[in-house]
Amino acid sequence: MSDDGEFKRDLNYISTRITADGRDGYPVEPGRYRLVIARACPWANRAAIVRRLLGLEPVLSMGIAGPVHDVRSWSFDLDPGGRDPVLGIERLQEAFFKRQPDYPRGITVPAIVDIPTGAVVTNDFKQITIDLSTEWTAHHRAGAPDLYPEALSDEIEDVAEKVFRDVNNGVYKCGFASSQKAYEEAYQRLFERLDWLSDRLSGQRYLVGDTITEADVRLWTTLVRFDAVYHGHFKCNRQKLAEMPVLWAYARDLFQTPGFGDTIDFAQIKEHYYVVHTMINPTQIVPVGPDPSGWLTPHHREQLGGRPFGDGTPPGPPPEHEIVADSPDQP
Amino acid sequence: MSDDGEFKRDLNYISTRITADGRDGYPVEPGRYRLVIARACPWANRAAIVRRLLGLEPVLSMGIAGPVHDVRSWSFDLDPGGRDPVLGIERLQEAFFKRQPDYPRGITVPAIVDIPTGAVVTNDFKQITIDLSTEWTAHHRAGAPDLYPEALSDEIEDVAEKVFRDVNNGVYKCGFASSQKAYEEAYQRLFERLDWLSDRLSGQRYLVGDTITEADVRLWTTLVRFDAVYHGHFKCNRQKLAEMPVLWAYARDLFQTPGFGDTIDFAQIKEHYYVVHTMINPTQIVPVGPDPSGWLTPHHREQLGGRPFGDGTPPGPPPEHEIVADSPDQP
Repeated sequence: MSDDGEFKRDLNYISTRITADGRDGYPVEPGRYRLVIARACPWANRAAIVRRLLGLEPVLSMGIAGPVHDVRSWSFDLDPGGRDPVLGIERLQEAFFKRQPDYPRGITVPAIVDIPTGAVVTNDFKQITIDLSTEWTAHHRAGAPDLYPEALSDEIEDVAEKVFRDVNNGVYKCGFASSQKAYEEAYQRLFERLDWLSDRLSGQRYLVGDTITEADVRLWTTLVRFDAVYHGHFKCNRQKLAEMPVLWAYARDLFQTPGFGDTIDFAQIKEHYYVVHTMINPTQIVPVGPDPSGWLTPHHREQLGGRPFGDGTPPGPPPEHEIVADSPDQP
Repeated sequence: MSDDGEFKRDLNYISTRITADGRDGYPVEPGRYRLVIARACPWANRAAIVRRLLGLEPVLSMGIAGPVHDVRSWSFDLDPGGRDPVLGIERLQEAFFKRQPDYPRGITVPAIVDIPTGAVVTNDFKQITIDLSTEWTAHHRAGAPDLYPEALSDEIEDVAEKVFRDVNNGVYKCGFASSQKAYEEAYQRLFERLDWLSDRLSGQRYLVGDTITEADVRLWTTLVRFDAVYHGHFKCNRQKLAEMPVLWAYARDLFQTPGFGDTIDFAQIKEHYYVVHTMINPTQIVPVGPDPSGWLTPHHREQLGGRPFGDGTPPGPPPEHEIVADSPDQP
């Protein structure tokens, strides 16, 4: 928190990379690593979506921390016995401490853990999805899309940088501001950026090019949480997403695309934010609303053209043990 | 607060009545009394609306407490020198103590103060509006509506009792619940009742009969605050009012009716709830949204027929010193 009440995110992560050539000591290798996420977390959600779209489930397993963590760590309280069945740990902190015993920063998801040593390789959320797209290509499913085409990477990063500053992180700047001024500045930047995005998306189906890219993944993980948490809990309330027609249709389009909506657990999303942030919700009461049924209504975005997976195909259904039981996309 | 976390409103008020025959010692008399309200408060808003609709402004003056009060009292911090210009007091508590030096309950608005003695006559919000309608008839403006027709009073009370329990007070039961169970019960009752009201109002313009009555006033003061405070702050978030088409049109119809929208100050409404309730909003940050411009959009409720003021007429504009400067109904 800065002097003027502005929320500052610590953007220092463990930047080791898992690459095809293994230059950081961690080569891409089927079955060697475990991606740890929490359904609640938008940063982790990016990795869960990209893994699904690329069909990496058979080679990169996924552990799911529960929605509620304490000040020190996410924990595996959803698993039998409260332990991740592969890593055998109760708290994600243990894997960070195996990497660095005095690890001083936040215990964050997504994190990728080296299963043989039990140590975190990286929690650098921004690099993780790019590396899944560009370093794990040998293990992509047949028909996997190119989410990070080299020819578009500058444009993707340009858009994503604006989206990160004003939207992904912008909602947190609204919610965690400790002064009225800092809140109002973040609110204004957020809605100006959403208006800009709405203009951009009114004539094209996806953010960059005519297919789904990394840029869409990064924007969408915030949009999908907007009405459930950011609108009320973080006071991002000029409108609901459901009242912004272009963005709402865009978000529904992706929700209904395999690999997006099937990663979403609204109950865990709401529980996380409303229970963990006692400084803004001291009662820890979790709202019953909003009604999520609107996510499945027709979006008509096909009319804009676009080829969701380019020359590829949609992914199949998620592995059975990763199906979200009470997602609105489940009957 | 009950053991199971349910909010219980203290419904004991000073029940002295100002009547035409003066049987409680306080006869109706032009210029003798001052109605004290706060723009923020829905219970006080009822009295402000009824006074406007009946044209009682010339005979019953109005003091306006500021939006933010401390635990003890509403205060006149909007007035020059922080004193009500007629009563000469800084805090409404002073008028309660003139009535009863050890007055033990909440210092609430609306209150009607006897100007000669400076003492509160009544703060019984439910009786105040009925008495303005039925006891002050000699001073109603020409063309004033009958808001409490005797032939309809049973039906008005029947509807209003349901509305009070599940909606007017129901939103507070959501927001002030201290257990998840108490919140969820109140939420369910609230939205079931709103669905019931929506059904009722889908085929008729007003709640009871074909004209505006006391029943509409009582429902509307909650609806008008719904998206600005109850939806987010009190977690009444199945939908926004703006997403419930019948109730939203009904609320806009009344907003655009003289005597309703011109009593509303959204800035004061939001400031009150978000600053005073530190137990649910400890940062005291006041949301910038929602965008209020939708209140002035066409509602098409005229198509249902109905005669807003019966055989009467709408009131003229408010007295100049009571005009809300930044209301969306002001250009």
